[in-house]
Amino acid sequence: MTLDALAREMKATHVLGAGRIGEAVDVVSEMFHDRSFTNFLTIAGPMVPAGFRLLFGDLIDRGFLDAIVTTGANLTHDVIESLGLHHYQGSFQVDDRKLIQRGYSRIADIFVKESSFERLDKTVRKFLSRIPIADRRNIAFSELLSKLGRMIKDQDSILHKATIRNVKIFSPGLLDSILGLSLWSFAQTETLQLNPFSDVTKMVNMAMDAEKIGVLILGGGIPKHHTLLASVLREGVDRAVQITADRPEQGGLSGAPLAESISWRKIRKGGKFVDVYGDATICLPLIIGAVLDRVKKRDRRLVE
Amino acid sequence: MTLDALAREMKATHVLGAGRIGEAVDVVSEMFHDRSFTNFLTIAGPMVPAGFRLLFGDLIDRGFLDAIVTTGANLTHDVIESLGLHHYQGSFQVDDRKLIQRGYSRIADIFVKESSFERLDKTVRKFLSRIPIADRRNIAFSELLSKLGRMIKDQDSILHKATIRNVKIFSPGLLDSILGLSLWSFAQTETLQLNPFSDVTKMVNMAMDAEKIGVLILGGGIPKHHTLLASVLREGVDRAVQITADRPEQGGLSGAPLAESISWRKIRKGGKFVDVYGDATICLPLIIGAVLDRVKKRDRRLVE
Amino acid sequence: MTLDALAREMKATHVLGAGRIGEAVDVVSEMFHDRSFTNFLTIAGPMVPAGFRLLFGDLIDRGFLDAIVTTGANLTHDVIESLGLHHYQGSFQVDDRKLIQRGYSRIADIFVKESSFERLDKTVRKFLSRIPIADRRNIAFSELLSKLGRMIKDQDSILHKATIRNVKIFSPGLLDSILGLSLWSFAQTETLQLNPFSDVTKMVNMAMDAEKIGVLILGGGIPKHHTLLASVLREGVDRAVQITADRPEQGGLSGAPLAESISWRKIRKGGKFVDVYGDATICLPLIIGAVLDRVKKRDRRLVE
Amino acid sequence: MTLDALAREMKATHVLGAGRIGEAVDVVSEMFHDRSFTNFLTIAGPMVPAGFRLLFGDLIDRGFLDAIVTTGANLTHDVIESLGLHHYQGSFQVDDRKLIQRGYSRIADIFVKESSFERLDKTVRKFLSRIPIADRRNIAFSELLSKLGRMIKDQDSILHKATIRNVKIFSPGLLDSILGLSLWSFAQTETLQLNPFSDVTKMVNMAMDAEKIGVLILGGGIPKHHTLLASVLREGVDRAVQITADRPEQGGLSGAPLAESISWRKIRKGGKFVDVYGDATICLPLIIGAVLDRVKKRDRRLVE
Repeated sequence: MTLDALAREMKATHVLGAGRIGEAVDVVSEMFHDRSFTNFLTIAGPMVPAGFRLLFGDLIDRGFLDAIVTTGANLTHDVIESLGLHHYQGSFQVDDRKLIQRGYSRIADIFVKESSFERLDKTVRKFLSRIPIADRRNIAFSELLSKLGRMIKDQDSILHKATIRNVKIFSPGLLDSILGLSLWSFAQTETLQLNPFSDVTKMVNMAMDAEKIGVLILGGGIPKHHTLLASVLREGVDRAVQITADRPEQGGLSGAPLAESISWRKIRKGGKFVDVYGDATICLPLIIGAVLDRVKKRDRRLVE
Repeated sequence: MTLDALAREMKATHVLGAGRIGEAVDVVSEMFHDRSFTNFLTIAGPMVPAGFRLLFGDLIDRGFLDAIVTTGANLTHDVIESLGLHHYQGSFQVDDRKLIQRGYSRIADIFVKESSFERLDKTVRKFLSRIPIADRRNIAFSELLSKLGRMIKDQDSILHKATIRNVKIFSPGLLDSILGLSLWSFAQTETLQLNPFSDVTKMVNMAMDAEKIGVLILGGGIPKHHTLLASVLREGVDRAVQITADRPEQGGLSGAPLAESISWRKIRKGGKFVDVYGDATICLPLIIGAVLDRVKKRDRRLVE
Repeated sequence: MTLDALAREMKATHVLGAGRIGEAVDVVSEMFHDRSFTNFLTIAGPMVPAGFRLLFGDLIDRGFLDAIVTTGANLTHDVIESLGLHHYQGSFQVDDRKLIQRGYSRIADIFVKESSFERLDKTVRKFLSRIPIADRRNIAFSELLSKLGRMIKDQDSILHKATIRNVKIFSPGLLDSILGLSLWSFAQTETLQLNPFSDVTKMVNMAMDAEKIGVLILGGGIPKHHTLLASVLREGVDRAVQITADRPEQGGLSGAPLAESISWRKIRKGGKFVDVYGDATICLPLIIGAVLDRVKKRDRRLVE
Repeated sequence: MTLDALAREMKATHVLGAGRIGEAVDVVSEMFHDRSFTNFLTIAGPMVPAGFRLLFGDLIDRGFLDAIVTTGANLTHDVIESLGLHHYQGSFQVDDRKLIQRGYSRIADIFVKESSFERLDKTVRKFLSRIPIADRRNIAFSELLSKLGRMIKDQDSILHKATIRNVKIFSPGLLDSILGLSLWSFAQTETLQLNPFSDVTKMVNMAMDAEKIGVLILGGGIPKHHTLLASVLREGVDRAVQITADRPEQGGLSGAPLAESISWRKIRKGGKFVDVYGDATICLPLIIGAVLDRVKKRDRRLVE
């Protein structure tokens, strides 16, 4: 049985999670096939530490994405892997006091060597110092990320790949990460002046210029909200699929059903959207696997 | 990409939900391949209303299962579908006051006609009255279900299929269902005397006779607990995979990790077990799809 | 600030969990105050092991309850505590292999000595053998529980207290517990014949005889469903409050909002009901504490 | 029964959610009593729209807090309420297409008039234009917020109250909010240059200067992470209590147990911390109510 066939059978149930996976495959297939879509992928949660770097890179290579909006953490770990450093299979059942003594930090059941962050810091400092001082003033987060991406040699780095493929990387909460701390630390002694408004402008412009907007949302957080917010001036996005493990009842945006976004003009009234409640590391490969049975590649219209 | 290949890539992440799906595919493949396993499938939650009847039937046909332990509700809806009646795609966003006025009952986003239950009741009464009175005394739940299963004509009925394939159907909480209400109602005026101890004996005997025990657990509840409890006299089951959307923190068994069962001698110390946190309607087809790429069929050893 | 004042402030928010707690206090207060209510408390999850035995006993003493519908596990642990045995503060972070070697079983972060269950078994056998053989035939679960409750000496036992206060104890899934295993084991060699239909009759009769029905639901499972099902012939209960940590999206009854029950005629169209999403060990003492600021005692109308 | 007594009884269970509430009351009481603590309150989720503005203001008035780290959304809604505009009791069961046509936006079951955001925008523009141009260059988010807070007349505004009480307001993701959009919009035509590094410096300095650090975490997100991250150079905070409804299994920080933070040097090895899994609108008033029975007021040591 192909993944496409599985998705069709799941859609045929029409109900519960299975039905939603089936619908999500339809919506993402449309987004990835139709050239009139400007597509955003938003990433929260430890998707890069969990090994989803190659999958994201593949989506970039196939021309499916126009922008990635991510937490700083996923970029931090992308750079770490680009240095040849690794994430390890760990366990939830561990004494964190002992773990740090042995030199490891933990994300759920993923371990990472604390020394990786020192290597990261040195690399980031080196890269930053290579940027001409004039270019380090009034710079957008996304431009700085693009400059770093160009200096990364690892072909599998999302930051590198996105840069050379002209896929924008936005990270509105970048400073709230270890990579962000490195930037801050550098800025204490060297010239580095970030303009936090620039990326709002860039995202709003991308949204305003788009014929249609599609969003694939992994896990909520600022990446979800900021992407939807950027489209508010055009009355919302046209297609959206979110995978979240959070709940709606407490009112946080990460667990809120997408329908709520209609009342904020963040999703168009006539838009299609699907809420998948589950673990993105389970649901994403299933959805993308089925989409790839239908859509292989997309020639993006690069207006810029 | 095949489902097997997808499962292997998910396993290669080793972490979070993806890693667990990969491990679950390995464990279920072993259970379904190895003839020395006596396999239990436990079902809670509306899997039959959600359209998983054919999948369960397929598992029976392929010889993978030795017993099914289920809520009475799933049997209720199996009989309803065997009468040519249907479950409908509904919606979570509905006014239940209006829904019942229009003659529908609701399970999440699944609708079912209230009249189905009257049809069910008539059929069950008819079937019961065909059973010789002598056989209606001191009867085990599973024996009664087997007699009903034999009378069902629909080849796709789980109850029917399990009966003719000699797969036991246990339903310890059977009376807590609409099918159970029909039995109770019949017993008010006709002879019907159930012995609730008999199935405990049968389940314990199956467990004691088994060389190895494998359990695939969908959704917790009495089906999960009763199956694990029945193996306590042999120091627990050997393999277990559970798919649950419940949480561990409040202490209910449905959300408890399987490791906890080791401390109750319900899983053997050397046993393998995997907790998958997610929606069974998403995770089960993914797991079974990958397992079927590896294991096609099993000749069960029918000792009885 | 009194608990009543706190509940009123929470209700004044009108929204999210706080608003629901406030409404729950109102509904439970009405149920506990108004003599025309027949009140059911349903218990799933380890409430007795978690130390809620005295609170339940207090509700019995104050005349608030007419019936308790519980898992067998909570009765198992009630009897264990009545033998002077204890539940211990444990931890989620423990190796269950080592734990059982040290003689402990685990419920979430609660530990219990495995030897307790042997003591339980001996006591149950002793109690059962004291019941005249004639009374051990065709007996309802609730009648058997009542006989055991009468033999328990511990004044704090729920089973004892309920029996002497004429509060019915129903446990439809009783055999799916360690106490149930003791009954089953006894029945292998001695006379003990349970009639599982009798309690359905008793619960339906209680429902039909009730002027109004109120249900306080802790944690779902068979206790929730069976209680609501028993009222289906009178078009549902009048008041219901549920505290659950499960989710609605996967369709299991334990996480389903009470509104769904209207479409099954398990809650009356004009009924009042409140869904509280949270941990019952947190929400219950808060709700009951506030209710007790308003209602101290109720003279039950004992018709029987 | 007092709230303090309730919390003590809950703690006496030692287990599950009740035990954790009891411990949380102890830890927060210590944080609020001991003058050597520098206390951070972090807020994610719609706590201000849900009506918790007065409670937060009360915590400021009593001297318990040294800094609040919040999403931009809570500040947005604080300013909206300070304009005399309101949040309304809504419903989860609503057609968002119709809702927005009637001029309302929705946060879970909370409604807010869309016109409120126009009023907000006008006010913010007016306030911003009152700030001397020289002060609008290279300004920290927190300094800008402080200037706005000073201009707000409503005594109940958190932003106002924090400013006059010298409690820092940090909002690292400020631009990802409607208030943030107003700032961005203003900056398109007027002088406004934000320095995003400044607040990292301020937070790190607060952490380094603190004798002890206590954190009360509502709901995760950037506020949680940024506060813990800021203390990494001093090997972590000393006390932390988090209330979250998210799950740990998918690896997102919002659902991660605090123990994990030890492996990141964000909580000290000898630190005390408590994870409360539940709805903050339920658990927070319960915890704070009990704390106030023990601690009435604190004289903060204002070093600055």
